[in-house]
Amino acid sequence: MPRRIYVDNSATTPVSDGALAAMLPFFQEHFGNPSAIYSYGLEANKALEESRRAVAKALGALSSEIFFVSGGTESDNWAIHSVAERYGDKGKHVVSTAIEHKAVLNTLGKLKERGFEVTLLPPDRDGLVSPERLARALRDDTILVSVMMANNVVGTIMDVKALAKEAHKRKAVFHVDAVQAAGYLPIDVRDLDVDLLSISGHKFHGPKGAGALFAKIPRLPTAYLTGGGQERGGRSGTENLPGIVGMAKALKEAVANLERVEELKSLRDRLIEGILTIQGSFLTGDEVRRLPGLASFVFTGLRSSVYLINSLNEKGICASSGSACSASSQEASHVLKSMGYTDDLAMASLRISLSHYNTAEEVRAIVEAMPDAVREARSRRL
Amino acid sequence: MPRRIYVDNSATTPVSDGALAAMLPFFQEHFGNPSAIYSYGLEANKALEESRRAVAKALGALSSEIFFVSGGTESDNWAIHSVAERYGDKGKHVVSTAIEHKAVLNTLGKLKERGFEVTLLPPDRDGLVSPERLARALRDDTILVSVMMANNVVGTIMDVKALAKEAHKRKAVFHVDAVQAAGYLPIDVRDLDVDLLSISGHKFHGPKGAGALFAKIPRLPTAYLTGGGQERGGRSGTENLPGIVGMAKALKEAVANLERVEELKSLRDRLIEGILTIQGSFLTGDEVRRLPGLASFVFTGLRSSVYLINSLNEKGICASSGSACSASSQEASHVLKSMGYTDDLAMASLRISLSHYNTAEEVRAIVEAMPDAVREARSRRL
Repeated sequence: MPRRIYVDNSATTPVSDGALAAMLPFFQEHFGNPSAIYSYGLEANKALEESRRAVAKALGALSSEIFFVSGGTESDNWAIHSVAERYGDKGKHVVSTAIEHKAVLNTLGKLKERGFEVTLLPPDRDGLVSPERLARALRDDTILVSVMMANNVVGTIMDVKALAKEAHKRKAVFHVDAVQAAGYLPIDVRDLDVDLLSISGHKFHGPKGAGALFAKIPRLPTAYLTGGGQERGGRSGTENLPGIVGMAKALKEAVANLERVEELKSLRDRLIEGILTIQGSFLTGDEVRRLPGLASFVFTGLRSSVYLINSLNEKGICASSGSACSASSQEASHVLKSMGYTDDLAMASLRISLSHYNTAEEVRAIVEAMPDAVREARSRRL
Repeated sequence: MPRRIYVDNSATTPVSDGALAAMLPFFQEHFGNPSAIYSYGLEANKALEESRRAVAKALGALSSEIFFVSGGTESDNWAIHSVAERYGDKGKHVVSTAIEHKAVLNTLGKLKERGFEVTLLPPDRDGLVSPERLARALRDDTILVSVMMANNVVGTIMDVKALAKEAHKRKAVFHVDAVQAAGYLPIDVRDLDVDLLSISGHKFHGPKGAGALFAKIPRLPTAYLTGGGQERGGRSGTENLPGIVGMAKALKEAVANLERVEELKSLRDRLIEGILTIQGSFLTGDEVRRLPGLASFVFTGLRSSVYLINSLNEKGICASSGSACSASSQEASHVLKSMGYTDDLAMASLRISLSHYNTAEEVRAIVEAMPDAVREARSRRL
């Protein structure tokens, strides 16, 4: 089988050599429980705190503001439930956007069951929500605003700093789902002035099963997983030390790679340029404010993204429609629909997400393969 | 530095060679997102479902009854919250025991904040709760009974089958925290007739960051982590595939090792016999109904377990007081106190937990080192 081209890095990434090498000693050699007080435990605890410092540094945070969790979904869940639990008696209104990841949307749905009111702001055609639109939605009883930093389907980058400013004017807590952004955009939690921020290791060449929540002190999040009181009482459960060490290393590498981000953007732009030569293809998301590696499209006359993904897969190219979670569901993307696309077009999307490990040669191969793939996919009927 | 003797396997275990080998291909080669529909995703999904079948088989369950989570704590949290959410309108009474792990106790504490009433049954001096005692505590509004299969501090094995029978007579859901039991005791969920059962990979030489919840069909647990709808909607978040594969392999190995459980018991008994020759030492927990690898003691005249653990650590032996989560807290064990031990004795405990990787030579070395270690520890004052 010829080597496959993997361009679905927004769904997940392979673990980098550096991150894997960093993790390996913690499975068998330094396997101790970080809470234990004998030598194995102390070593483990040291590695845990070193990882915390590394993640904190990458985000411009303090170590004491970083909490390790099992991934982006848990981080989003925790952030949202924590604010609801702490400030629920102050107000029961939450504002978010219609294009959030389901880890946010479905968790807000749970709050609704508990009597909260949730306002989901529609984005513009490019996937942006303006600070003015947010300002109009804020109320005296708004306790939380949750907005993603970059969208997972179209790659549009929100103006988080301006949005956080509006939220804070009305004393609401501001949470950012930075799962797609971390490792691909510079993040400085102080400059952005956000209160809570979620990241996931496996999106930037760290391992699956590790994520983090930044929570600005002194607002310690109330626990969502309760038990032994790890993570300063915030998140119980024996720490997944190999995963945490791997995530910290991968984030460090990703931040270093930001220096080469122009190369990534240039690959992405070649991809966009090449694919837009196909008749009836349209770029989705903002042209300028977009993730450096993410190119997203819709195609007229295509019944379902699944056909295109399958055609590409047969040609050795792994891409997706935009959300791994609903990849096989043949459902129109809620993101594209919120942006004003018709159901037909929202069903016919393609997301190609590059990382620093993709090459110009791969991009060339994709651009060459695309016209055939689209033609084949268009010829298929449900 | 001489080779250390690790006998705190109830806190955590090194990943077995077999489990690590099984995991490794999933970090870089087969790294796909199991939800993706292209080749990398399909491979990943296949490995996910193979792991599910392996875990199901080890527990006597159906594949469709196994849900993967981040560890034992999440499994316990999910099980408890799920029952509270689903049956909370039927009744608001929960029964558990005073010697549960904090992942259960603190989660029940959260239910209390939400208006539930929690009855914690005291165990007898050996750490057992009788079916009769449970029966007396059950009420018409009892919706959940949560009892651990084996205790983490003293190793006492509960009569889960008889307890579940009592719970079911009163139509309560029965949850078992089998975190300490899995891999060390045979578990057959059909024979035990339990509804929910929690396990944690890193307790039986699988990796940290992976656990599972067994949930008897047709009672699908309501989601605790919400989002992309993985694990049949039950547990959102990209699956930690390397962790899951490693856990499944480790559990398979552990179940195979059950054939050699008499060897483990014999090592444990040599340890108990040797240590009980020390004056003022007492075995805690049931003499017969105890985990095959767990030996637990209290010592008169010892101000704190910490001194003894430190003395042993200086001699290259890693053991603990019984709960990694509170190892450094210098708090009297809630388990021993519930069993009727005085505060002084509950502060002066030692747990030595063996696995199949420990040797007779190590046991001999521990027995030899103990008298000096206890003497040194006793001579220390707070």
